Amino acid sequence: MHGYDEILSKINIALKTVSYKQNPAELYEPIRYSLEMGGKRLRPSLTLMACDLFGGKVDEALNAAVGLEIFHNFTLLHDDIMDQAPKRRNMETVYKKWNSNRAILSGDTMFAMAYQYVSSTDVHILPQVLKAFNQTAIEVCEGQQFDMNYESQLDVSIDEYLEMIRLKTAVLIAGSLQIGALIGGASNEEANQIYRYGEAIGMAFQLKDDLLDVYGDEQKFGKMPGGDIVENKKTFLYLKALEHADEIQQKALADLYNDVAIEAEIKVREVKAIFDQLTIREITQKAIDNYCIEGVTYLNGIDKTEENKAVLKEFSNRLMKRDS
Amino acid sequence: MHGYDEILSKINIALKTVSYKQNPAELYEPIRYSLEMGGKRLRPSLTLMACDLFGGKVDEALNAAVGLEIFHNFTLLHDDIMDQAPKRRNMETVYKKWNSNRAILSGDTMFAMAYQYVSSTDVHILPQVLKAFNQTAIEVCEGQQFDMNYESQLDVSIDEYLEMIRLKTAVLIAGSLQIGALIGGASNEEANQIYRYGEAIGMAFQLKDDLLDVYGDEQKFGKMPGGDIVENKKTFLYLKALEHADEIQQKALADLYNDVAIEAEIKVREVKAIFDQLTIREITQKAIDNYCIEGVTYLNGIDKTEENKAVLKEFSNRLMKRDS
Repeated sequence: MHGYDEILSKINIALKTVSYKQNPAELYEPIRYSLEMGGKRLRPSLTLMACDLFGGKVDEALNAAVGLEIFHNFTLLHDDIMDQAPKRRNMETVYKKWNSNRAILSGDTMFAMAYQYVSSTDVHILPQVLKAFNQTAIEVCEGQQFDMNYESQLDVSIDEYLEMIRLKTAVLIAGSLQIGALIGGASNEEANQIYRYGEAIGMAFQLKDDLLDVYGDEQKFGKMPGGDIVENKKTFLYLKALEHADEIQQKALADLYNDVAIEAEIKVREVKAIFDQLTIREITQKAIDNYCIEGVTYLNGIDKTEENKAVLKEFSNRLMKRDS
Repeated sequence: MHGYDEILSKINIALKTVSYKQNPAELYEPIRYSLEMGGKRLRPSLTLMACDLFGGKVDEALNAAVGLEIFHNFTLLHDDIMDQAPKRRNMETVYKKWNSNRAILSGDTMFAMAYQYVSSTDVHILPQVLKAFNQTAIEVCEGQQFDMNYESQLDVSIDEYLEMIRLKTAVLIAGSLQIGALIGGASNEEANQIYRYGEAIGMAFQLKDDLLDVYGDEQKFGKMPGGDIVENKKTFLYLKALEHADEIQQKALADLYNDVAIEAEIKVREVKAIFDQLTIREITQKAIDNYCIEGVTYLNGIDKTEENKAVLKEFSNRLMKRDS
């Protein structure tokens, strides 16, 4: 079994070998910038770990892993245009540093590059891997569309929100595990089992993100807390608050979110005060824990030794305990 | 052998069976709109014809053909955002009818759908088909980037222009043929040979487009002639005119292209008059003919009967003689 550090190092080395053409520089410069921006390399790590769990050679999953990381970064490039996000990982986004057209086209090229990497998977398992990847890619787009819809949709239910983050975030984490498992020799049933594990920890991962945005340590999280509140995002915390609020609290929340002139700091403080009254932090943490428990049940259902599962379990524990 | 009408009918039937999810409607509505907009179905037709030429079963190439048509339409969706084009095939473009975000994300989804179709090719030839498709997809993006660069680049050479249209237009036509040939049982060498045929007729096809834009019959072409001139596009005709113009003509051209206040009709008439003085129509037609001759040489080099090649030859002849 390969430890997490070894796996991450393999991925970073593989990402360094991605070659960028010289021309047109306008296309390849943003691609290099985006892939060298860093990040957790979560998805490719999961691919290699899942391959390892089933006794496969992790190097045989490396190209697919790189493809998944390129795909993930492509989605960020396009999402940042659609969300008009100026910053990503404390750096200017591609769309802001250059322009929308460059971000659209560099993103498209990254999507094709992602397929180039995924396609180099051994032919005996290629159709299954592609099937998983294609479906994942389409669902991620669906998730982003729902996310955009919910910006202007007034009544978003908790269930709708959960389905949105499942599509936008969880299925790619699940698909990364599934693809690694398939390459590692898992049966279709086993690959589906680890997919479900991935879906559950993917949900927990996104809820943790929502939580950190409000309750994260500014120093560690690297950004001002409350960004989602300032931007009126309908996160799990906000929707849960609406659900639990009495009439007065509902009105106070609505007033705060409708007040376009309010200072950001004051808005965050007051919304947070309502969240605190409603124990939203604890409610969210409970939901995260439940997803983790659900995930582990799926993982436990896979007929492999505890030793084989240890790296994956430790990694997902670390994800849930992270403060950034 | 299947005649052109039969092939086109197979493609249109296959395109009608593309299923669109209901949700999110914001995503699938533009995809349906785009794929039902019509068009020549040039690329998938070539895929089936190439498959047929090598004695393959055309139905086995049908999914890849549909994938190539979806891919082509995806590139149009994104190009129209980048070029801010309001109309396509006499209908509103997706970006104009809805908005850029919808066009970006529907396009991304179509790209994934294209791969879904291409991926369902029989596994024995799948790696080669994907390799061809991936490379084509990346080169099409490169071509679009060069096209955007040349809008603001002052000195574009004829060679640069030809390389741009090779990437933006010819390689997809070539790749469509190559993929059909591979599925039809062609050797790699034969598939490369038909790729080169496709590159040559692809170049001729784009130059014919440039020509029709200026010299096409308004009734048949369906749009006002001279659109490229009005938009200051550096087409083959314009670049050839610059090359052949004397100092006075060069200055006249520069003045016409720099005059932002000039009426469109007058600008087109006067630029056309200079083109006529320089026999640009004949020069362009000669270039088209040369590419066709080059293409046919590649086709003739393939060891198949004249009868087998007849459909493809007739089809490319028709493309070159088209007036719309």
